[in-house]
Amino acid sequence: MTAIDRPIPVHAPLSQFPVRDGELVVGGMPLSQLAARVGQTPFYAYDRAQLRNRVAELRTALPASVKLHYAMKANPMPAVVGLMAGLVDGIDVASAGELKVALDAGADPQEVSFAGPGKRESELRQAVASGVLVNLESMREVHLLAQISQDLGLAARVAVRVNPDFELKGSGMKMGGGPKQFGVDVEQMPELLAAIGAAGLAFEGFHLFAGSQNLRPESICEAQQKSYALAVRLADSAPQPVRFLNLGGGFGIPYFPGEQRIDLQPIGDNLAALAERAKTELPQAAFVIELGRYLVGEAGVYVASVLDRKVSRGQVFLVTDGGLHHHLSASGNFGQVIRKNYPVAIGNRMGALDTEPASVVGPLCTPLDLLGDRMVLPRAEEGDLVVVFQSGAYGASASPQGFLGHPACVEVLV
Amino acid sequence: MTAIDRPIPVHAPLSQFPVRDGELVVGGMPLSQLAARVGQTPFYAYDRAQLRNRVAELRTALPASVKLHYAMKANPMPAVVGLMAGLVDGIDVASAGELKVALDAGADPQEVSFAGPGKRESELRQAVASGVLVNLESMREVHLLAQISQDLGLAARVAVRVNPDFELKGSGMKMGGGPKQFGVDVEQMPELLAAIGAAGLAFEGFHLFAGSQNLRPESICEAQQKSYALAVRLADSAPQPVRFLNLGGGFGIPYFPGEQRIDLQPIGDNLAALAERAKTELPQAAFVIELGRYLVGEAGVYVASVLDRKVSRGQVFLVTDGGLHHHLSASGNFGQVIRKNYPVAIGNRMGALDTEPASVVGPLCTPLDLLGDRMVLPRAEEGDLVVVFQSGAYGASASPQGFLGHPACVEVLV
Repeated sequence: MTAIDRPIPVHAPLSQFPVRDGELVVGGMPLSQLAARVGQTPFYAYDRAQLRNRVAELRTALPASVKLHYAMKANPMPAVVGLMAGLVDGIDVASAGELKVALDAGADPQEVSFAGPGKRESELRQAVASGVLVNLESMREVHLLAQISQDLGLAARVAVRVNPDFELKGSGMKMGGGPKQFGVDVEQMPELLAAIGAAGLAFEGFHLFAGSQNLRPESICEAQQKSYALAVRLADSAPQPVRFLNLGGGFGIPYFPGEQRIDLQPIGDNLAALAERAKTELPQAAFVIELGRYLVGEAGVYVASVLDRKVSRGQVFLVTDGGLHHHLSASGNFGQVIRKNYPVAIGNRMGALDTEPASVVGPLCTPLDLLGDRMVLPRAEEGDLVVVFQSGAYGASASPQGFLGHPACVEVLV
Repeated sequence: MTAIDRPIPVHAPLSQFPVRDGELVVGGMPLSQLAARVGQTPFYAYDRAQLRNRVAELRTALPASVKLHYAMKANPMPAVVGLMAGLVDGIDVASAGELKVALDAGADPQEVSFAGPGKRESELRQAVASGVLVNLESMREVHLLAQISQDLGLAARVAVRVNPDFELKGSGMKMGGGPKQFGVDVEQMPELLAAIGAAGLAFEGFHLFAGSQNLRPESICEAQQKSYALAVRLADSAPQPVRFLNLGGGFGIPYFPGEQRIDLQPIGDNLAALAERAKTELPQAAFVIELGRYLVGEAGVYVASVLDRKVSRGQVFLVTDGGLHHHLSASGNFGQVIRKNYPVAIGNRMGALDTEPASVVGPLCTPLDLLGDRMVLPRAEEGDLVVVFQSGAYGASASPQGFLGHPACVEVLV
């Protein structure tokens, strides 16, 4: 095909939210009613039914023996964590702040794990006192945990986060392979495992996390296979049998034009085959899959009001009350090299035939404050509701809410 | 020269902070003492003497008739705004939140201006009630201000932000020229000025802001000349004489290797020539230069502690308790297309001869959390203090402090 007749990539269909009488329905409520209920824009809304559906889909696709963990860094809103704690098998936290939210939400400490390349001593102490599993990332943590265990009279529960000798191909962010701040290099594992044994820590297993936001099942399967094989190899040097094997996550969601949802079936088949092998090779090990974005990302929308419809030199700008201060990643300023548009709609004019190319911008005095760059949208007016889809993960908590002194956004679970 | 003997670009010398006995001195105090005074890391420290020096340098270089405004979006810490309010001639705010801080800091409302492409109606009402100057950015704001003026019995003070028909060359961010959400296109100005007159608003002048973070004096001078000429042209259609002409700012500071400080002299000469012309062409107009980053950026440092010194496959990682959640722009995730290193030092080992290539990373579970990528630094150990220079602007307030639930950073003015 020539450049001219190559089809323009489009966003994957967003069928998770129904449309009724031209309005998007979120949490069972037409968007304009929801906005009135919230009492202000901008806001984030997370849909309970979508969260439940996503967990159910995973339960169907993955073997029953695989434990599903929620990595709450993706969305730490306490109400979301509370809901998820009741749906999944465990919560992964990345700081003492997240640990508090998880425990407040009623998560069982036995099923909470704490990872992070730079844990403060006070955080390690809180983790041991809480009885959660610490994903060790360096020899320093072995020494600190030995001291803390002695101080508290509680043996620290530990798994080791391993920096493997392979990478997750096609991953949005690589977190394993090569030199990394994450985990312990495979080559250093025998020494570290011996130190854990000598220190009397309660060794439980391994954590391998090769990368995130991957839309290629074959890459995820390959990483799981390699991670499993590595764990089997490392188990020989472990001070106790492996009871916990966190194979990471990395399941992506479609954000940008041309991206498609991943097919869970091959991943489920792959995990079933590995679980079968584990019956003999790692007989005490429970597999854990740790997902953040994949569990919550598609269940959330960001909603802002159009303040002004400006036409500058022929280009339409919908100036909204929301922007990068609430939704940094949709503005293209969070890890993206080339800015692309998230899926955007006018939530109270769904399916309208009167469309035009328009840019959606925020109220900030910076050209970075761009939520949609020249998208074809229903012709919108002041007061209309702009919706940014795929906004349930890395939204409110991953944005500079204090920037330029605008009000913080509200989050609701509906 | 060939690629081989081309010199490697280095950071501009950072002479603004003295070094005493191998320690960086900030606010007159050795860094380790300052850290003890603050009581925690990470923190931002802003040096009063540097803020005063920078204003004094500008006063010397620019004509005495030019008013100097502080665009507080660069650093809205109340103590900084309070200090700056006493040093400069006016404060520029970008939201009602910033307006409150400026007024609390004692800024004279007569010398406060409020700009932003998407002002909420409630914000416009607060601005009129406060008596500050509103930089109008659309016809919608004319209509709203007319109504608010009537409601409150106070004529809104307005200037018009103009979207010029030229761009600021060499600017880090372009905010004028072409289709923009900022300001009113030159072509639409006659209609808008007539509407302002008809609505009985108190017209005071024009605001032109072509772009930011520019290190080329010749570009800044050219933009000022064109802005001035445009204002003279527009003055004919204005309902009242021009009393206020904000020529923007855009003065950059050196962040990255190879960048140099701008020379103020040609800018001062240029403004003097324009001011001379204005005596006849715009006899009632006061020139305003609006600076944010240039006033405060070099006066601030971000300080974090080394939690762990990890060596992974031969590469040294200094894992600190600070990172992108406090200092997004130093991580390269705020408008930069290609990540480059801010100037970084080990503040308690200044000038140490035992150096090594090391990467400075934060505690977050993401490879984006990178403050220094393979820089040559003094060999650092746990507890050492990593300093990121050029951190006085767009730091704490422009970062996602809630990300991953780590504690917020502290800011001190010293």
